[in-house]
Amino acid sequence: MTYAPVTDVLSGKLAVDSEITVRGWIRSRRDSKAGISFLAIYDGSCFDPIQAVVSNELNNYQEEVLKLTTGCSVEVTGTIVASPAKGQDFELAATAVKVVGWVEDANTYPMAKTRHSIEYLREVAHLRPRTNVIGAVARVRNCLSQAIHRFYHEQGFFWTSSPLITSSDCEGAGEMFRVSTLDLNNLPLDDQGNVDYDKDFFGKETFLTVSGQLNAETYACALSKVYTFGPTFRAENSNTSRHLAEFWMVEPEVAFADLNDVAKLAEDMLKYVFAAVLAERRDDLEFFASRIDKEAITRLEQFVNADFAQVDYTDAIQILIDSGKKFEFDVEWGIDMSSEHERYLAEEHFKAPVIVKNYPKDIKAFYMRLNDDGKTVAAMDVLAPGIGEIIGGAQREERLDVLDARMIAMGINPEDMGWYRDLRRYGTVPHAGFGLGFERLVSYVTGMGNVRDVIPFPRTPRSANF
Amino acid sequence: MTYAPVTDVLSGKLAVDSEITVRGWIRSRRDSKAGISFLAIYDGSCFDPIQAVVSNELNNYQEEVLKLTTGCSVEVTGTIVASPAKGQDFELAATAVKVVGWVEDANTYPMAKTRHSIEYLREVAHLRPRTNVIGAVARVRNCLSQAIHRFYHEQGFFWTSSPLITSSDCEGAGEMFRVSTLDLNNLPLDDQGNVDYDKDFFGKETFLTVSGQLNAETYACALSKVYTFGPTFRAENSNTSRHLAEFWMVEPEVAFADLNDVAKLAEDMLKYVFAAVLAERRDDLEFFASRIDKEAITRLEQFVNADFAQVDYTDAIQILIDSGKKFEFDVEWGIDMSSEHERYLAEEHFKAPVIVKNYPKDIKAFYMRLNDDGKTVAAMDVLAPGIGEIIGGAQREERLDVLDARMIAMGINPEDMGWYRDLRRYGTVPHAGFGLGFERLVSYVTGMGNVRDVIPFPRTPRSANF
Repeated sequence: MTYAPVTDVLSGKLAVDSEITVRGWIRSRRDSKAGISFLAIYDGSCFDPIQAVVSNELNNYQEEVLKLTTGCSVEVTGTIVASPAKGQDFELAATAVKVVGWVEDANTYPMAKTRHSIEYLREVAHLRPRTNVIGAVARVRNCLSQAIHRFYHEQGFFWTSSPLITSSDCEGAGEMFRVSTLDLNNLPLDDQGNVDYDKDFFGKETFLTVSGQLNAETYACALSKVYTFGPTFRAENSNTSRHLAEFWMVEPEVAFADLNDVAKLAEDMLKYVFAAVLAERRDDLEFFASRIDKEAITRLEQFVNADFAQVDYTDAIQILIDSGKKFEFDVEWGIDMSSEHERYLAEEHFKAPVIVKNYPKDIKAFYMRLNDDGKTVAAMDVLAPGIGEIIGGAQREERLDVLDARMIAMGINPEDMGWYRDLRRYGTVPHAGFGLGFERLVSYVTGMGNVRDVIPFPRTPRSANF
Repeated sequence: MTYAPVTDVLSGKLAVDSEITVRGWIRSRRDSKAGISFLAIYDGSCFDPIQAVVSNELNNYQEEVLKLTTGCSVEVTGTIVASPAKGQDFELAATAVKVVGWVEDANTYPMAKTRHSIEYLREVAHLRPRTNVIGAVARVRNCLSQAIHRFYHEQGFFWTSSPLITSSDCEGAGEMFRVSTLDLNNLPLDDQGNVDYDKDFFGKETFLTVSGQLNAETYACALSKVYTFGPTFRAENSNTSRHLAEFWMVEPEVAFADLNDVAKLAEDMLKYVFAAVLAERRDDLEFFASRIDKEAITRLEQFVNADFAQVDYTDAIQILIDSGKKFEFDVEWGIDMSSEHERYLAEEHFKAPVIVKNYPKDIKAFYMRLNDDGKTVAAMDVLAPGIGEIIGGAQREERLDVLDARMIAMGINPEDMGWYRDLRRYGTVPHAGFGLGFERLVSYVTGMGNVRDVIPFPRTPRSANF
């Protein structure tokens, strides 16, 4: 018995007349008056199901085949034949249909054939990968992840893992989750009556990290080019379509690099992974273009061929002021641009991806390199048409005295950051990096409007099911 | 100016007589009486530093070059020449040495040139990647991770992410860390005076996951072949060389697969990734073989060429009993084998990697498929010579009635596992998978005896620094 993934049959990889077995789940069954049934069998290996043509001469035709409903699992053996049907080149002339698993009650099966709202699908996150839309998301998500690893590997980067549990809480990127093994109903207290974290698992307060960057810097200052790709956390009570409490981040960090170097790296990386998904997941992209967002393919094609614009924050603010456009949030030098501003720049003014550079120091983190003007830091955001900010990065402050002054100004005790300061005490180098929110990338590629639908099991305020 | 990674020079990728600039950190400086200095410059791109030959005719020779110490960062421009020195084919005839960053005080630099104990290096985990040994670990770790992604991608698997924060605590693989945003010094209480988790971020008790498997099963039952590669957690107070509180796991899960299918998958995967590291990181492996574990290379070569043995648990127990060997822990049917038993089987009896199959149900998890004998489950462990268990896996129980009975017998309320049961109610399929502890794999390949030295920032009881 030769088992074949559906993709190998539909792509023509297997010869016509081969006898094979496909295994998967019934998407639909259609019966003709002539005593032939058409089964659409989906195994997830590609977007399309394969059509199996089943004759009523099969032993179990009446008893089983005619009772198959959406979601039943089957093994269908048959011969590959050229298909007369539209939209597929090959189909299976079935010689045997083995039912592996029935659906308990077709009428109450949560994934029965009718279309479901995307909000309903979130309630059944354990079954939603069986749908067209979430299956396509999963394949695109995989394709993007593989392309990211491949890109960095080819560029000589080393994947490194930053710790998830951290005792450092001064990165300031957001609220943090506490990690503890203390018994909350019986907390150990110290002499002052405060919780005694010395009794906790790590002997001190620990949290889930908001970014792997500071740790990645230690490896960049030894191996030159590294990147992380792992989960990060925000305990922010944000119920928006763009926020998750747990999400994946890609964070490259490069020694002997300045802001312009990582701006180029960001552009190269995005174009590389978009080109990969255009080449490898055309089937899924076509679905997104037809059902979710008609720009899904053209947006990527334009991005890959676009000349990125670059603009200083100060000039970008002037462009927004000069636009004469009425924004919800007022524009003046010093603001943290909001999505409407970012999208105006990318979509209306530059009509291309834009890298905005050199932001006011007061709206950026302590570790970003102070520019010579004393007012701005070497930070950048990559803004993409259709979504706004997709990447944020910076050159890091490599000068110990400037770093210390910035920490003190921002209320961080340099002594708490001894290990981070050491990188500047011993063979310091200019270095830079950026962070890419992976779910925002998947959302951008698929056109899915809510990041909750591009990660298998989203974690958001009051929601951690499954 | 052409910047070149050291690896491109030493591998001969760049032509002799090319003028290039390398950027990195001084490993050592040696001065000849003739007024020439030899700088060993390391940039992490490969194991070896490049030698730069610096003449005293350079402007800054007296003022700077002669003051360079281990750890200083430099940019050295020069011409690639064939090297007369042993152990390297190429070196750099320097025309300029630019000092980028000094070392604050060479005498107190924690990574000064003398050799350090591996325990000391853990105390300075932010600087230890600058050493030969931890740099080599980082490159091998990257190589293994890239090879794992490549292997599964080529085999048609989709990478999927399991959630890290979970409200499900019944997997039973170990103690869990609580995740919370409650203020421990001011806990909200309910009517009964217990902690009111409804006020917590997720509206209920949540923990860090011990395994992504159950979630991965939901995707395997839709896309057929998936794998996770992400962090998992154990809040066990184990201070051993094999345990971390936070570690990375690789968990493939395959629909329409039985135990034998995933036994083969495990063998194929291990051989694939070992072959990759033998081909791609020979430089680092040679270092491990010379300094850490003289079997480092031969062990991998033998593994790649080995015929795996397979043995039933019941037969393995008999082999141990018949061996006449005195073990610390007594051998009888029903025991959970300890490391001494596993290593005897792999190293002395079979002298090859061994897959032990069909373990007693009482020592295994509820989700493993009950065999027809009613006593054992379709579980497997892959035992490797030199380390013992490296992979644990199982065929999953796909029969709803058997699964329910097992859950009840093990004190798990089936109602709490509604989503997991749904996979068996709707188009259930035989499926199987396994888990590979990534740090144990890196430890096995490098010969590093403690998993704390193969992850950048290890988390263990009372230790979560950096």
